[in-house]
Amino acid sequence: MQRELQVRDCSGCLILPGLIQAHVHLCQTLFRGLADDLPLEEWLARRIWPLEAAHTEESLYWSAMLGAAELVLGGTTAILDMETLHHTGAAFAALERIGIRATSGKCLMDAHPEGAALELAESTDTALAEAESLAGRWHGAAGGRLRYCFAPRFAPACSGPLLRAASDLAERCDAQLHTHAAETIVERETVLRTTGTSEIAYLESVGIAGPRAVLAHCVWTDAHEVTRLAAQRTNVVHCPSSNLKLGSGVARIPEMLDAGCRVALGADGAPCNNRLDVFSEMRLAALIQKPRLGADALPAGRVLELATLGGAHALGLADELGAIAVGKRADLVVLDLGAPHLAPNGGDPVSHVVYAAQPSDVRDVFVDGRAVVLGRELLTAPLEEIAREAGRCAVELRRRAGIG
Amino acid sequence: MQRELQVRDCSGCLILPGLIQAHVHLCQTLFRGLADDLPLEEWLARRIWPLEAAHTEESLYWSAMLGAAELVLGGTTAILDMETLHHTGAAFAALERIGIRATSGKCLMDAHPEGAALELAESTDTALAEAESLAGRWHGAAGGRLRYCFAPRFAPACSGPLLRAASDLAERCDAQLHTHAAETIVERETVLRTTGTSEIAYLESVGIAGPRAVLAHCVWTDAHEVTRLAAQRTNVVHCPSSNLKLGSGVARIPEMLDAGCRVALGADGAPCNNRLDVFSEMRLAALIQKPRLGADALPAGRVLELATLGGAHALGLADELGAIAVGKRADLVVLDLGAPHLAPNGGDPVSHVVYAAQPSDVRDVFVDGRAVVLGRELLTAPLEEIAREAGRCAVELRRRAGIG
Repeated sequence: MQRELQVRDCSGCLILPGLIQAHVHLCQTLFRGLADDLPLEEWLARRIWPLEAAHTEESLYWSAMLGAAELVLGGTTAILDMETLHHTGAAFAALERIGIRATSGKCLMDAHPEGAALELAESTDTALAEAESLAGRWHGAAGGRLRYCFAPRFAPACSGPLLRAASDLAERCDAQLHTHAAETIVERETVLRTTGTSEIAYLESVGIAGPRAVLAHCVWTDAHEVTRLAAQRTNVVHCPSSNLKLGSGVARIPEMLDAGCRVALGADGAPCNNRLDVFSEMRLAALIQKPRLGADALPAGRVLELATLGGAHALGLADELGAIAVGKRADLVVLDLGAPHLAPNGGDPVSHVVYAAQPSDVRDVFVDGRAVVLGRELLTAPLEEIAREAGRCAVELRRRAGIG
Repeated sequence: MQRELQVRDCSGCLILPGLIQAHVHLCQTLFRGLADDLPLEEWLARRIWPLEAAHTEESLYWSAMLGAAELVLGGTTAILDMETLHHTGAAFAALERIGIRATSGKCLMDAHPEGAALELAESTDTALAEAESLAGRWHGAAGGRLRYCFAPRFAPACSGPLLRAASDLAERCDAQLHTHAAETIVERETVLRTTGTSEIAYLESVGIAGPRAVLAHCVWTDAHEVTRLAAQRTNVVHCPSSNLKLGSGVARIPEMLDAGCRVALGADGAPCNNRLDVFSEMRLAALIQKPRLGADALPAGRVLELATLGGAHALGLADELGAIAVGKRADLVVLDLGAPHLAPNGGDPVSHVVYAAQPSDVRDVFVDGRAVVLGRELLTAPLEEIAREAGRCAVELRRRAGIG
């Protein structure tokens, strides 16, 4: 069926390819502001594990609705998401309703990490069976806009057989593999101690490498590992806000790009950011490298590539997304240049996008040619209802988790 | 005269003391996006010097109008500003019209820094005479909302006698002294080579120290200098975006606070940021210390103090500004908590302000009890005219400077 031709006046605006965030946790949106100024290990044990374990189908749905609404209103048209152990179907239902392009997966954990709530680990078989079933239901749903990913949490929370099976399933289903890697020095040392090998090499040994694999963070990688990541065309997702806020460090992104690595950007979850704002991530990605490498490190144009083509690679959709071009899908952002912070015109528009633009400048958002945001209004769900229900669920969730 | 009682519904909002930025350059707003990804020395010589020299009275007025509009719409109610050598009266006229609280001063330069446009240096006497005349005209104008500051650019561009005379004039006029210090390692080494003493000690020797003195940056200071800054109650202005973008470094703010230093925040100018957004500066100030010192370094509450009480000290107005309290002036920001990125409610509101809020959340802004922004609309000047005139002046300015 041919779509009706739409003509929209975009004078005074900049049209961008849809921006992509390749590492988010929508199940954590309700935890925003509940876990500040804590290092990763405490942040997980004291806040994130108990809060994730306290989710219900309903609270998870509204957490994903809230996060997806914020993302799409701010110009993010596609995400790679990791949910918690349970209720991943509710997240997909929210993603289907909001209209964002999303690849998401249930978090796989069959080992019991230190400090984790007891509920947060399953048997290897239970975890894999549910993942396979979810993939059957959601991979390719909503006309291909929704896809499934196999998402082992991180090496310290997963057995070797689970990681290997996740890799095999991803291959069999033609799906992405989404995990965390080398986020902190503690994680790096834990993996080295328990497996006898460095984290990137260990992940490679269980099949978590190559164009299907998406490794969030990669802060603690050495030059040899960077060479391996590049050679395998493994995707790295840089999460600058999260890496700073949790005190994890500054990933060596310019060195990774020089080595030929594929790099995307992501906000990670609301409690470690606390925004889900691709403009904040782009600006910060550019800024944090400069004291170390000089003011010309990671210039604006290079950063915009991370949030477009880099994200498209991480989603395994480089043929379809990441640029405005014949044959690519119409995932588009219309950026209104009228605000004072984007004036005067006449400079480099890429500089405005990376260094000055904000979510509030996003006027219209199209996903696969369909308008999801027009005139700064979300068309797919009432924002008041999302805020009200998310607020109610957050109160109950905090009570169940005994937090706040 | 008694003011009319106004009642405004602020349900669903947070009321903050007006946010203060203690280091900005409104004359540079028209240069936004023209000087990216360059280190400070090149940034000055190739872009900022020629552009400042090309300003006219008219282009400077619209540059200040644009910057002040962005600032006040984004919740900044008071600034400490440094202009260029000429046309400072035009900046004051803009500040008077926009309705922001501002302390501003003509930039004093009587030495000719390497690479500077020839026009950018005056005789010591000419510089001081104009500054004194401007102080007579503007210090205490607009019912005390506007104040003058004596603003030597930085030690490498000023003779010792100019610095000493600026300090004496500030004392005599009861005005602040606003300069840059220890921004880059190059600057530190230049001052050491030319004066034989370290920069902070040199500035102290010419009277640039104490509660009147406001030193922007202070990235390259040692423990001894930090102790001196604290003992003298000299104000330090932290400009995290600018320090990252120009590759200058990360100022040791937690160490300065531990030593008892007075610290404020500032966006610096549009070409080195490229926002003039106090929320970006607060968030970044918190984030950039954490990889070095741990995730609990510079927590949200401490950062909010820098943007309120810290700024009030830098303006020399700690008795009048920086908190909502009986006896303080009614400089207020009404922050609308309705956007998805500030949901759910129930966490720490200070966390929302520092880590998640954005300029677009600012609903109303009052300066000295007078509404300047209501319902996100600037009441004091038409934004369309500002954007149009700023755009026109920017084109002509770039042509005169031979840039862009």
